[in-house]
Amino acid sequence: MPTPVKSVLPVVLLGCGGVGRYLLRHIVSCRPLHANQGVAIRVVGVADSSSLLVAEDVHSNGLDDALLTQLCAAKSAGSPLSSLLAQGHCQLFKNPEARGKEDFQKLVSNFRRIRFESTVGAGLPVIASVTRIIASGDPVSRIVGSLSGTLGYVMNPRDDLGGMDVARKVSELGPDAVSTKDFLESGLVQLDKSMEERVKAAASRGNVLRYVAEIESTGCQVGLKELPKDSALGRLRGSDNVVMHPSLLFFSPFVWSSLYVTTDCSFDQVEIYSRCYQSSPLVIQGAGAGNDTTAAGVLADIIDLQDLFQTTA
Amino acid sequence: MPTPVKSVLPVVLLGCGGVGRYLLRHIVSCRPLHANQGVAIRVVGVADSSSLLVAEDVHSNGLDDALLTQLCAAKSAGSPLSSLLAQGHCQLFKNPEARGKEDFQKLVSNFRRIRFESTVGAGLPVIASVTRIIASGDPVSRIVGSLSGTLGYVMNPRDDLGGMDVARKVSELGPDAVSTKDFLESGLVQLDKSMEERVKAAASRGNVLRYVAEIESTGCQVGLKELPKDSALGRLRGSDNVVMHPSLLFFSPFVWSSLYVTTDCSFDQVEIYSRCYQSSPLVIQGAGAGNDTTAAGVLADIIDLQDLFQTTA
Repeated sequence: MPTPVKSVLPVVLLGCGGVGRYLLRHIVSCRPLHANQGVAIRVVGVADSSSLLVAEDVHSNGLDDALLTQLCAAKSAGSPLSSLLAQGHCQLFKNPEARGKEDFQKLVSNFRRIRFESTVGAGLPVIASVTRIIASGDPVSRIVGSLSGTLGYVMNPRDDLGGMDVARKVSELGPDAVSTKDFLESGLVQLDKSMEERVKAAASRGNVLRYVAEIESTGCQVGLKELPKDSALGRLRGSDNVVMHPSLLFFSPFVWSSLYVTTDCSFDQVEIYSRCYQSSPLVIQGAGAGNDTTAAGVLADIIDLQDLFQTTA
Repeated sequence: MPTPVKSVLPVVLLGCGGVGRYLLRHIVSCRPLHANQGVAIRVVGVADSSSLLVAEDVHSNGLDDALLTQLCAAKSAGSPLSSLLAQGHCQLFKNPEARGKEDFQKLVSNFRRIRFESTVGAGLPVIASVTRIIASGDPVSRIVGSLSGTLGYVMNPRDDLGGMDVARKVSELGPDAVSTKDFLESGLVQLDKSMEERVKAAASRGNVLRYVAEIESTGCQVGLKELPKDSALGRLRGSDNVVMHPSLLFFSPFVWSSLYVTTDCSFDQVEIYSRCYQSSPLVIQGAGAGNDTTAAGVLADIIDLQDLFQTTA
């Protein structure tokens, strides 16, 4: 006898690129698995930047015309639709963009009805773990990460965190801005040389270079750091790939991300320090990029919302 | 204006030892934090093996006399109380003990209403991460762990997994069983010597010894393994403490656990392999023992159930 369905989750997918398409595939291939767990995901709408396709019975899934118009108008899948949350709907993000303090407050006050795990480290349970630690009253004092696919997120908005830094470093190539062609032909060589020297100098001190993001109560830092070879971040496997193409670090978060994806060597590491994880931080490490993995993370987020969608028996 | 309470979670605590006492402390100290998130935890009962203390208004929290009698009769905090789950209550475990297939089935069929994160690695998000991966349709092929406090769980039931192995290894001390006194006086010395030789032999091959648990679809293996120094488990920090007292590994999971707690060097590492985490496994590492950390993990589990306890607005 099949398990009777206990939760039905109607989903509207905003944005249907690489991750979105994998998500649809995962939802379909997981139907038997979810049915066994008493969960059914119904995709009642799919939208891209130009149009919205809805199922015939979309209205019976709690989505009225006003809401559909809003969804259709939503330019970015990352925009927090506060009216959506106010009406009791849930929202999942790959890359949430809080536009100012007010937006951020709206998101936080509806914390149980939003999920955004795949924002950091694809499917890696980073947000879920930090949320658990905070919920248990264990104050997080510091988060340190060596990030690959995640770099794009931490550098967002790029003007504040990444853009100026990238610009400054690229401008070291010469007094004038360089074209992509010139950068690839001669800039990379120069950066490679300068990086090679930094790598050698670090090695002579028993250290290695890592691109590190640090989050503390006092602020945020992102940059290249010289770390002891036997430190948690220094011991990272796959590091050869980082130092083999060090100049790519400065070029663009996307290039770095792609580099990792193509070499199939992508992984992130995040260290979380708190009262309970003081001397031995909570370390989460693993593949942190790729459409398949990212979509899997979003699907896990959907399933995590099932208790809010229980059908009355 | 304070956030109105959205979820009230009435809790009966079965067992009030080291972890239970820390849990009560954490619940009290987190009241303002949880209130901000719209959650209130009400401890309506506390039981040890001999008695059950209940709050005056326990009945108005959905606990009837029949249930209280059952709770009072429950000898172990780890017993799955199937009638409890059948009535729609939730259950949290530090160490669940499924007594046979039927018990196990009952637990699994109420999966959303049980939590047992602290069973493995204290507060480390191991179960939560495996649950997320499985929910996303990503098939887990292999779990490898170097476990300290966790050893007790993996060895449970000890007769099958740990007991015989421990007995066999202890019996290597001589043809007759040894008393605890004899074991501590002369047994440890002999084991220390034999272990020292194994450590040296491994080192001469560039390897280290690790106590490893491996879970695959074909079965389970727990034991001492010689691993390359630069492998994920071989690189574990704090390993000095393991090889300094190798004989303790064989004595009892409790001794090992205590050793770690007192040296404040306890941490676990778990590697999870799946389709998404094939070449770069999902690695979770951190402090995996201690009453404070374990209680924090149980509290995070309680908070994770809040959507099932929503008050009607």
